[in-house]
Amino acid sequence: MSDEMLCIDYRRLESVYGPLAQSIRRLVDLSIRTEADPETVASAKAKIDSAADELSASARPGPFGVQVTPDGQTIAWGNAVIGLRNPVAPPLVIHHEPDGLVWSEFTLGAAYEGPPDHAHGGVSALILDHVLGATAHKLDRPVYTGTLTLRYRRRTALGRPLRAEAHIERTEGVKTFSVGHIADEDGVTVAAEGIFISPKT
Amino acid sequence: MSDEMLCIDYRRLESVYGPLAQSIRRLVDLSIRTEADPETVASAKAKIDSAADELSASARPGPFGVQVTPDGQTIAWGNAVIGLRNPVAPPLVIHHEPDGLVWSEFTLGAAYEGPPDHAHGGVSALILDHVLGATAHKLDRPVYTGTLTLRYRRRTALGRPLRAEAHIERTEGVKTFSVGHIADEDGVTVAAEGIFISPKT
Repeated sequence: MSDEMLCIDYRRLESVYGPLAQSIRRLVDLSIRTEADPETVASAKAKIDSAADELSASARPGPFGVQVTPDGQTIAWGNAVIGLRNPVAPPLVIHHEPDGLVWSEFTLGAAYEGPPDHAHGGVSALILDHVLGATAHKLDRPVYTGTLTLRYRRRTALGRPLRAEAHIERTEGVKTFSVGHIADEDGVTVAAEGIFISPKT
Repeated sequence: MSDEMLCIDYRRLESVYGPLAQSIRRLVDLSIRTEADPETVASAKAKIDSAADELSASARPGPFGVQVTPDGQTIAWGNAVIGLRNPVAPPLVIHHEPDGLVWSEFTLGAAYEGPPDHAHGGVSALILDHVLGATAHKLDRPVYTGTLTLRYRRRTALGRPLRAEAHIERTEGVKTFSVGHIADEDGVTVAAEGIFISPKT
């Protein structure tokens, strides 16, 4: 099979499994918000269990891992932050600017709640770990968080447009020192700095 | 309605909505792992969409929030870490020892992946934010993260028994200084320290 055909295959798989995950994200949200009566919940649960049985007939034994396409694209469809096939992930779409700035714009729903109507502090940490780490990311080479420090200035609201961004401050050997934040339309809500390790192998 | 009846009602609701969320957690995992063909995925997706339509007919407009039962228990069923009704949450069960130690034992599946076969660094941050924060938690009074620092000693594996624990080092007015970690059977994988704020109101 040619490289081009393999790439087309990934796009085809994306069009099959992407909408499935999106439907499950809607279900995750409704699991939290529904006020349906027990009979309706039992009916919905039966359909969900039946769908899961169908999907389980053919499934890889472990997690998705990270795959690299012939044209060098990283496929991390199971990733907890950006995974196209992972309904736990919002999922974030990460943008890389030529000057090294990494950013993502997103909105968080009911599934990311901590204090009432606001994002869980740990969800902001989850997102910032990923966005800061993405500044150090090289193709097909994983990056590991060394240390991460988060400073919470005020609460981060659910249901409002948010933006996360990060850039590299400096590098020292295998270490990348990055800084970044999450902001809403009124400014920064959480600031972060981190050291990320790129193993030499 | 008596207080006792309200408590019973929460237990009844738990028995309705808890199993629904558990079924959706299985679906989340299969969304990542299934290798079903497009026809099977389309069939499963149709059932999922139908279940979501049923559940959406009666749903609260916003996130779940935090409710307090007449006997003083906090109901945070939408919480991203402990939420019984939130399929994004593993969910963690948090234990409070008389000496102030807070701990939770859990295993992370495919939905929490970062590097292949390992937990996303941000997922460890999410969990530690919650477990450290729980040391400062008072009934019906929210606690906000002020700062959180994470030190990653080595990777945290998916599919292995893990334990998170934390305790208070000291308090200063509204500030609680807490430390903790995640460990597997070979020792600590991620250590954390945080300052948590308990507003006076």
